Amino acid sequence: MRIVVIGAGAAGTGAALEARKTSREAEITIVSNEEFPEYSRCGLPYAISGEIPEFEGLVLHDQGWYGKFGKVKLMLKTQVTEIITASNRMEVKHEDGSAEELQYDSLILATGSKPSIPPIQGLQKEGVFTLRTIGDGRRIMSAGGRGKRAVVVGAGLIGLELAEALHARGSEVTVIEFLPNVLLAMVDDDIAEVVKKRIEERNVKLILNTKVDEVIGKDKVKGVKATNMKTNEKITVEADILVVAAGIKPDTALAEKAGIALGPAKAIKVDDHMRTSVENVYAAGECTEYPDFITGASTRVGLGTVAVRQGKVAGINAAGGNATLNNLLNTRVTKLFGVEVAGVGPCTDIAAKAGMKIVTGKVRGSTLPEYMPGGKEIIVKVLSNDEGRLVGAQIVGEEQVAQRINVFAVAILKGMNVEEFSMLETCYAPPIAPTWDSMTISAEAAMKKIRRK
Amino acid sequence: MRIVVIGAGAAGTGAALEARKTSREAEITIVSNEEFPEYSRCGLPYAISGEIPEFEGLVLHDQGWYGKFGKVKLMLKTQVTEIITASNRMEVKHEDGSAEELQYDSLILATGSKPSIPPIQGLQKEGVFTLRTIGDGRRIMSAGGRGKRAVVVGAGLIGLELAEALHARGSEVTVIEFLPNVLLAMVDDDIAEVVKKRIEERNVKLILNTKVDEVIGKDKVKGVKATNMKTNEKITVEADILVVAAGIKPDTALAEKAGIALGPAKAIKVDDHMRTSVENVYAAGECTEYPDFITGASTRVGLGTVAVRQGKVAGINAAGGNATLNNLLNTRVTKLFGVEVAGVGPCTDIAAKAGMKIVTGKVRGSTLPEYMPGGKEIIVKVLSNDEGRLVGAQIVGEEQVAQRINVFAVAILKGMNVEEFSMLETCYAPPIAPTWDSMTISAEAAMKKIRRK
Repeated sequence: MRIVVIGAGAAGTGAALEARKTSREAEITIVSNEEFPEYSRCGLPYAISGEIPEFEGLVLHDQGWYGKFGKVKLMLKTQVTEIITASNRMEVKHEDGSAEELQYDSLILATGSKPSIPPIQGLQKEGVFTLRTIGDGRRIMSAGGRGKRAVVVGAGLIGLELAEALHARGSEVTVIEFLPNVLLAMVDDDIAEVVKKRIEERNVKLILNTKVDEVIGKDKVKGVKATNMKTNEKITVEADILVVAAGIKPDTALAEKAGIALGPAKAIKVDDHMRTSVENVYAAGECTEYPDFITGASTRVGLGTVAVRQGKVAGINAAGGNATLNNLLNTRVTKLFGVEVAGVGPCTDIAAKAGMKIVTGKVRGSTLPEYMPGGKEIIVKVLSNDEGRLVGAQIVGEEQVAQRINVFAVAILKGMNVEEFSMLETCYAPPIAPTWDSMTISAEAAMKKIRRK
Repeated sequence: MRIVVIGAGAAGTGAALEARKTSREAEITIVSNEEFPEYSRCGLPYAISGEIPEFEGLVLHDQGWYGKFGKVKLMLKTQVTEIITASNRMEVKHEDGSAEELQYDSLILATGSKPSIPPIQGLQKEGVFTLRTIGDGRRIMSAGGRGKRAVVVGAGLIGLELAEALHARGSEVTVIEFLPNVLLAMVDDDIAEVVKKRIEERNVKLILNTKVDEVIGKDKVKGVKATNMKTNEKITVEADILVVAAGIKPDTALAEKAGIALGPAKAIKVDDHMRTSVENVYAAGECTEYPDFITGASTRVGLGTVAVRQGKVAGINAAGGNATLNNLLNTRVTKLFGVEVAGVGPCTDIAAKAGMKIVTGKVRGSTLPEYMPGGKEIIVKVLSNDEGRLVGAQIVGEEQVAQRINVFAVAILKGMNVEEFSMLETCYAPPIAPTWDSMTISAEAAMKKIRRK
C-alpha cells in the first residue's frame, strides 16, 4: 500500500505517523515544498522575540526521525504540480528541476494555508512581510529590532503575537485593525477589552476601526496610509517594516485543480473520517473546513490542535483503519503581554447569527480564595442557549486560564447545562483555587438569568 | 418559618446563606460553639507559615455580615446540649452559662468533625496539639519556630501542609506515618512518590511504615517512641512539639443522641437532598457521609468543596426549595513544597476493593511544547474501568495541575470514555500548553492497554 501525504506540517506529519502506526506495510511518502521537516508555525513569534533562542529550535523532527519509522520518505523542497485522481497519481518537481511521478493508494492533502492579503496598494516593497515560514520569521526578525518602527496589519492572534515579539526586540510597534477591537475572531468585545488595555499599557499603539489603503515609499516601505472607517479620517503611519497578519486562507489550489470539492467556506470539505469528495483522497488541517460543534456551520480550520487531530484521523483511515473526529469546539488560547485569553465554542455574535438565543453569565473573580495573598483577577464568561445548555466560554486573566477553558470544552462536548455545571465539584486548596470557582459562579449567573425569564 | 443551623463553618454558613436566598421570610439562627464566625480551616497552615499574615485574615465574614442579610442571627460560643426532634426544638447553653430553648421548622446539622486521635500513650502533655481551630493554629505557631524540633503524626493532607508550615517557620520537622507513603488517601503510591521525594529534598524527615506508641516527657513532650511496622524496630524521636494530624472523625454526638441515623461510615447519612432519617432535619459537611460517584460506597465527607455544596443544597431545601447534589467525585488538590498534586475519583486500591478492574494510563510530559523553554514536568495518570470508562485521574507537577484535574472531573461526571477523551480538543499555544496535552495522551495509553486485552 502506498500512501502519499502532501504537506509536512502538523496535519501532514501527524497523518504520516498515524498511518505508519496503523499499517506496518504501507509505504509512506511525504512531499513538502518547504525547506524544513515539521516545525511549529505557532512558535514563530517566540523565536522572533528571542524566547526560543534559535529558529531551528522550532523544528520538531530532523530528517532522520522520519526514516526511523521505516518506509517513510520525506521529500523536501518538492512541489506537487498536479494530482490526477482518476489514475491515483501525481507529478512532483524537485528542487533540482527534475520531475517525478508518484502513485498512491491513499492520498492525504495537508497543504495548509497562505496568509490572506487584504487589498492594500503597493505591497510589493522591501520591508513588507507576512509570517508563515521559518524564512519569513528570520526576515522579520532581522528587519525589526531596537528603534525600528513596525506596523502590523491585523490585531488577531498572529498579529498580536507578532506585535509582542517585535516589541520585545525593541521595535516601536503600531497595530492597525479593521474591526473595533482586538481578537474579535477569538472572543467577545468585553473580554477582548482586557487584552486591549494591557497592550496599550505596554506602549504598543493600537489603531482600531481602520483600513490600511496603501503602502508608501518608493522601493522600500516608508509607512502606510489608512482610513478610519467610522470617521473617514485619513492617517499616515511611518514605518520601517510592515507585516500583514490579516488572517489565513486555505491553500486549495492543487485540490481544486484535481476536482476535489470545496465547501461553503471555500476550503476542502471533509467528512468525519477526513474523506474528501474523491475516493481514497483525504484532507486535514488548514486546507479544510469542518462543522462547528455548536452551530453546525462548516468553518475553516485554523487551529494547530484541530490540524493534528484531523491529521491523526486521516492517517489512520488512509492506512485502512477506522477513526472519526467530533465536530469542532475550537478550544483556543493565547498569552499576550502577560494576559492569558481563551475561548471555546462560538462567540456571541456568531452564535446569534446562527439563530441561537444566547444568555451569558459573567464573573470577575480571583484565581485564589479571597483570604489568600497572591490571587490574580480572572474574568469568566459563559454562553448558554436559552434552555440552559452550555455553548461557549471565554476567560481572561493573568494565570490559570488555559486549563479552565479545557474544563468548559469537556462540559460543552458532553452537553452539560449551566445548572449542573454550577454545582461541579472543582478542586480547592488555599494556595491554588477557591471553593467556588469563577467557572461555576459564572454558570450560576447564567442560570439565574434564564430562570428569571 | 424558623431555620436553625448548628455549626458556622463552610457547610453551616453556606446553608444559612442559601436558606436566606431561598426564603425571604425564614428566621435563621446559626449556633456555633466556636469563637469566630466562618473562617477557612483549610487556610490554617498558611497562617501558621506566615503566608497569610494574621489568623484573623482567615475569618471570611464579621458578625455584621450575617446581620446584613436580615433575620440571620449568629450565636457564637454557644453549645447545643440536646436536640428533641419530636418537638422540633433544642436546648442551647451560652457562654455566660445561661440556657435557652430554640424552636425550629427546619434544622441543619453542620457540626463538622474532630481530629481523629490514634491510640498513643501519654498524649496529655504540654506541647501536644491537634489542628482544627484558629486557637489550635495560634498555639502551634507559638510553640513551633526556629530551631524547635517538631514531630507531626500523619502524612496526609493536613499533616504535610502543617509540616511545610512549621518548616517555613524554621522548625526541624519529622513526619511519622503509619502507611508506606505520603498522601495515600489522596493518590496512588507512584504519584505520591513525587511528593515524597520533594519533601525529603527540602530536609523534612519522613519516617514511614511507623506507628507512634508513646509520647515521652514528664509534663511536657520530649519526644515520641515509635515502632516500624515492617521491621519491628523501635525508635525514639526527640521533639519540642508534637502535632497529631491523623485524619478526622465526624462529630455526630448530637445527632446520635437525637436518634438521627448514621450510615455505614459512621457519619450522618443523608439523601441527595441532604435529608437525614428524621423529618425536617438536614445535615451537611464533615459530619455526613455521601455516596462516591464511581464506587457508590457511602464515604465520609472530608473536602471543603463538598461541604459548601452540601450546605447549599441543605439550605435551599430547608427553606422550602428543591435542590439535589450529584454523588461525590472527590476532586482534590494541594500544593506541598512547590509540588501540586491532585486527584479525582477513587484511588486504584479503593476502586479494586469495590470490585472494579482498573486499567491505568500514565504519561510523563511537560506543561509546555517541547520546543518552548520553561516547561515543567507533569505526570498524568488516568484510571479507567476495563470497558474504557474514565473513573479517576491523578496528576502531579510543579504547575498547572489543579485545573487539569477539573477537566477530568467533568469527563468522569459525564461518563466519558478514554477513547473519546484521547481526542479531546484541548487548547494550545506555545507559551501555555502543547497540542497534545499529557491528559489526552494518558487516556490514549489506557485505551491502548484495553485494546490489547
